[in-house]
Amino acid sequence: MIDLRSDTVTRPSDEMREAAAEAPVGDDVYGEDPSVNELEERAADLVGKEAALFVPSGTMGNQIAARVHTERGEEAIVEANSHVYKYELGGFAQHADLQIRPLDGGDAGIPSGEQVADALAAEDLHAAGTGLLSLENTHNRKGGVAIPPEEVAAAAEPAREFGVPVHLDGARVFNAAVALDVPVTDITSHVDSVMFCLSKGLGAPVGSMLAGSQAFVDRARRERKLFGGGLRQAGVLAGPGLRALDNVGRLAVDHQNAERLADGLDDVDGLSAADPDTNIVLVDVEGAGVTAAEFLDRCATVDVHGTEFGEYTVRFCTHLDVTESDVDTALDRIADLV
Amino acid sequence: MIDLRSDTVTRPSDEMREAAAEAPVGDDVYGEDPSVNELEERAADLVGKEAALFVPSGTMGNQIAARVHTERGEEAIVEANSHVYKYELGGFAQHADLQIRPLDGGDAGIPSGEQVADALAAEDLHAAGTGLLSLENTHNRKGGVAIPPEEVAAAAEPAREFGVPVHLDGARVFNAAVALDVPVTDITSHVDSVMFCLSKGLGAPVGSMLAGSQAFVDRARRERKLFGGGLRQAGVLAGPGLRALDNVGRLAVDHQNAERLADGLDDVDGLSAADPDTNIVLVDVEGAGVTAAEFLDRCATVDVHGTEFGEYTVRFCTHLDVTESDVDTALDRIADLV
Amino acid sequence: MIDLRSDTVTRPSDEMREAAAEAPVGDDVYGEDPSVNELEERAADLVGKEAALFVPSGTMGNQIAARVHTERGEEAIVEANSHVYKYELGGFAQHADLQIRPLDGGDAGIPSGEQVADALAAEDLHAAGTGLLSLENTHNRKGGVAIPPEEVAAAAEPAREFGVPVHLDGARVFNAAVALDVPVTDITSHVDSVMFCLSKGLGAPVGSMLAGSQAFVDRARRERKLFGGGLRQAGVLAGPGLRALDNVGRLAVDHQNAERLADGLDDVDGLSAADPDTNIVLVDVEGAGVTAAEFLDRCATVDVHGTEFGEYTVRFCTHLDVTESDVDTALDRIADLV
Amino acid sequence: MIDLRSDTVTRPSDEMREAAAEAPVGDDVYGEDPSVNELEERAADLVGKEAALFVPSGTMGNQIAARVHTERGEEAIVEANSHVYKYELGGFAQHADLQIRPLDGGDAGIPSGEQVADALAAEDLHAAGTGLLSLENTHNRKGGVAIPPEEVAAAAEPAREFGVPVHLDGARVFNAAVALDVPVTDITSHVDSVMFCLSKGLGAPVGSMLAGSQAFVDRARRERKLFGGGLRQAGVLAGPGLRALDNVGRLAVDHQNAERLADGLDDVDGLSAADPDTNIVLVDVEGAGVTAAEFLDRCATVDVHGTEFGEYTVRFCTHLDVTESDVDTALDRIADLV
Repeated sequence: MIDLRSDTVTRPSDEMREAAAEAPVGDDVYGEDPSVNELEERAADLVGKEAALFVPSGTMGNQIAARVHTERGEEAIVEANSHVYKYELGGFAQHADLQIRPLDGGDAGIPSGEQVADALAAEDLHAAGTGLLSLENTHNRKGGVAIPPEEVAAAAEPAREFGVPVHLDGARVFNAAVALDVPVTDITSHVDSVMFCLSKGLGAPVGSMLAGSQAFVDRARRERKLFGGGLRQAGVLAGPGLRALDNVGRLAVDHQNAERLADGLDDVDGLSAADPDTNIVLVDVEGAGVTAAEFLDRCATVDVHGTEFGEYTVRFCTHLDVTESDVDTALDRIADLV
Repeated sequence: MIDLRSDTVTRPSDEMREAAAEAPVGDDVYGEDPSVNELEERAADLVGKEAALFVPSGTMGNQIAARVHTERGEEAIVEANSHVYKYELGGFAQHADLQIRPLDGGDAGIPSGEQVADALAAEDLHAAGTGLLSLENTHNRKGGVAIPPEEVAAAAEPAREFGVPVHLDGARVFNAAVALDVPVTDITSHVDSVMFCLSKGLGAPVGSMLAGSQAFVDRARRERKLFGGGLRQAGVLAGPGLRALDNVGRLAVDHQNAERLADGLDDVDGLSAADPDTNIVLVDVEGAGVTAAEFLDRCATVDVHGTEFGEYTVRFCTHLDVTESDVDTALDRIADLV
Repeated sequence: MIDLRSDTVTRPSDEMREAAAEAPVGDDVYGEDPSVNELEERAADLVGKEAALFVPSGTMGNQIAARVHTERGEEAIVEANSHVYKYELGGFAQHADLQIRPLDGGDAGIPSGEQVADALAAEDLHAAGTGLLSLENTHNRKGGVAIPPEEVAAAAEPAREFGVPVHLDGARVFNAAVALDVPVTDITSHVDSVMFCLSKGLGAPVGSMLAGSQAFVDRARRERKLFGGGLRQAGVLAGPGLRALDNVGRLAVDHQNAERLADGLDDVDGLSAADPDTNIVLVDVEGAGVTAAEFLDRCATVDVHGTEFGEYTVRFCTHLDVTESDVDTALDRIADLV
Repeated sequence: MIDLRSDTVTRPSDEMREAAAEAPVGDDVYGEDPSVNELEERAADLVGKEAALFVPSGTMGNQIAARVHTERGEEAIVEANSHVYKYELGGFAQHADLQIRPLDGGDAGIPSGEQVADALAAEDLHAAGTGLLSLENTHNRKGGVAIPPEEVAAAAEPAREFGVPVHLDGARVFNAAVALDVPVTDITSHVDSVMFCLSKGLGAPVGSMLAGSQAFVDRARRERKLFGGGLRQAGVLAGPGLRALDNVGRLAVDHQNAERLADGLDDVDGLSAADPDTNIVLVDVEGAGVTAAEFLDRCATVDVHGTEFGEYTVRFCTHLDVTESDVDTALDRIADLV
């Protein structure tokens, strides 16, 4: 089976399992888990923030950020195809009662500074004021687009000048940094808070980090309890999480595999795949006379798996458990199918 | 003073004041106010619904509709420039925790059926399902656009087929019906609930009506209490409200005055005003080398008043208290200014 | 018909109807209604606060106060039988997401300072912090109990020292002041905000006032719009409201009538009625071998009406439209019945 | 160090760590983690429900239950000293907008059937209807009280007859079953849903189970995503969780140790400790002339740790990492102190 559905499917390596088994632990609700504490410090350093918080999932990290940054009655600007808007069950409205103002970032996956500037609203007698700008990098729906630091800066700047905090859903922000060959802090320095996942390309079984100022993280810690994210001997997750941080460099391999996969698929008659920035390949299957669902059904018969991303769009995702040879096998099988 | 800021500024006529003074009243929370009961029956008949409810404002009517139509965790589709989205303080998120999906209806002021069909979402493990489609007719921000019944039908149909209720913010729906020369029920028959205002062009001092099925109105009555909209001897408002219903026919006069005003303004050097559908005139003042705010400041010096609707856009609104001669006077004064 | 269900059933006098017909009006959303402005000033003066706001109902006033005083995630202390807790549809949780901590004020209708002090909670990692203390005077459920200023002060003091704002649901606070023969400001000086009704004993058809600091009222004005309580020519309600303020003195008549009624009922075999503080009489009908519902059904056959307040408890309420002679007639009819 | 602060502080045994290292895993968001699936099946069987769901914490389990069982605008009845009310940051109001009606269960830790029956409310025009009854067993604040099945049944029955679902916060429900020597299903059969913790006395590092009908768990699974509780290779937690289920029987040891501790403390001059039902010992230190905080400070100097539970009340909790000999050592050290 070649599982290209998502980089969330990676199974922990022996090393990570060993880390789970051997991590020093304590009760993290009391702040006494040494592995969690070490992970939070390293994570904060990595993204250049004062502090960080371990959270069980990226969704929880994003949702907590929305609650901490905003007050009752505000509006959040989000990218129109972002994960927080499309795949988190309307959480910003559910958890923080935020009115959503989506901006279409197009293929860039990020609104321009002008778009943001136009959308910012001061509270008045009739209108909700903007309380948050949420960005995403890499941008999942747009095909793992690695958004350059200057575009992040351009979108964030008008918000921050307006006094509006900026959150980055950086579930795969290390993919962006590696692809762009910049320090991740070149990206994260433009935002007030950033969430990144240990459990996607970095390969940890469970967990994400939410980083920002000390005051932000202090409040986030309390909100985490409200969400039910206060864990006990979380070191069994933080241990593998620490190992996951060592996997940043090797994301380049996933990107090469993704490129190899895209090239190969694009060569198949009826399929069209753009050159990927990172580890996500979007394939247009319309030319093959099938829908995405039909295409995936056929792929499944040869044990290659992807995700439906539109009526004629399929997403394939490379990751830690996919080798160059897996890519070639997948290409062979798909070529045979079509 | 010629007050063209809004049709909400109309002062009640002597007849209406008399109606306030003489209306039979009772405690409406007990359902015992005969004037309110009569008004609710007449309003329901007028818009072709089973039942109607008196509410203190259009905002309350729209917000109650959102709560009654939806369940926890859903998404509402709204037009991107609609009143419920831009001028009700983020109410759909505040009152009903709804994630907002705005669709740009363009100059038509209404999304196409295709846009709606594309935006409808079934609830799944990751996404909020659509719980409401909210439309607006006439469309205020777009300049009082009277949206024809077939366009309302086209937008509403995919939603209703999907099992999603459709609400119409018909604050000025009678302006639409009069302008299009159709029975208002040609418009309202395509939606599940409709709110219309007694207090705008129809000239009542206070109040709006929310109409729909009997079950909808029963639930709306309870929600009204939660909002603090359960009034006591509301007959003092319902009496004038009943008189206001007699003013539907004369909205044509406001439309003629608006056309006269638009024509005249368009003839002024530097000003540009499109032909209005109803009683709202949008004027582009950029050609006069001033911003909307500056233009309105100057108008105020000659006691003509309007509303800023964009950096270079001014809204003028005709109504019951503006005569043809007032229009001419306003035009003369503005021509002198520019 | 002798209607003792509530003091909300009073019909406006000719004088009030005239006031509705003749009040100077304007668009109150723009702050231009002179009658509303006058009413807000007079109301603020009366209760000794910097500013006041006209709201369509007491419920809206209380609910707005809860939103303005609190932040996301807090707890509200309320009296266990108070109106905000029992008759406002769970509004504090619906509108302001407040966890409710009810304190049983017993027959006094108000918790002691010690009870309040014990219930106050600072926000910590596990617990919601107290954001509001809400009191009620007179206390409706307990039988129109007029709570003396010193008891209000005792309950409010620990909260205010703790930095927790205190709101008074003073729907009938003038009844309390008149019954206790103290200036109403002796009561309202101990709270941060107070709502009182124009539409109960004071006899206006519609409306209540919410008073507090200027900053509080500024924020309340914006929240009022969110609730749909921003009205247009609200002067048609404010005119009668101004007349209603002249009715404060005559509440003493209602209290005398209530006492006469209670005395008379207590003399009827099987009925027991305590001496009322104000205009609300609670009658225990168990001795008559009937439930409250059965008792009220019988009363209705002789056109005397009250409200069920418990399995064996009936509430009768005196008001502007009930004369001494009405009381005697009611007593005669009830005596005949039992 | 003898850590009696909570049974949450237990460190995973070597066996559990091994289970974490060796558990077969998959992506649980896709339902493909075999360890999680096995755990969910075993948990459902254990408590006699159709289905169960792994959640990262007990708080999340309780909060999800509140959302799934209720609709917008309802009221929840909770025990006045229960965890959901006092230690979950006002979650029922935050997550589900529920008005809270606390009932004081006294030393029994559970309201009587009569109390519940009196508190149940049907929705009407003024009042929120009851949407949930939440119970807790064992009752933490009351000292780990093991509530017998018949008392659970008595409290639950009127609610269920009224159509109101009953949730059990059974964080330590196996302690109750073991202490009462009944099958846990004798307790859980009276409720619609139950949450129990793997991470307290059962010794798992992280996690709790939420069980109920299949329809309930299906909806809970979706809500879990909204809370950010959808994990990926959750098998690294489910593996230890499966081992934790084997620890049910040995809770009796904790109870014996708790009894030994209580007896010993009660013998110390100035201390008073009631006989514990389960693994929680409440000690009254007032007789020793110190506050709970002061007492705990002194204990800390001899490396014995507990939790402040009131001005003069200290909670000690026995668990997997506390032996009989630890108890004796703690007693010796404390006796020396006082």
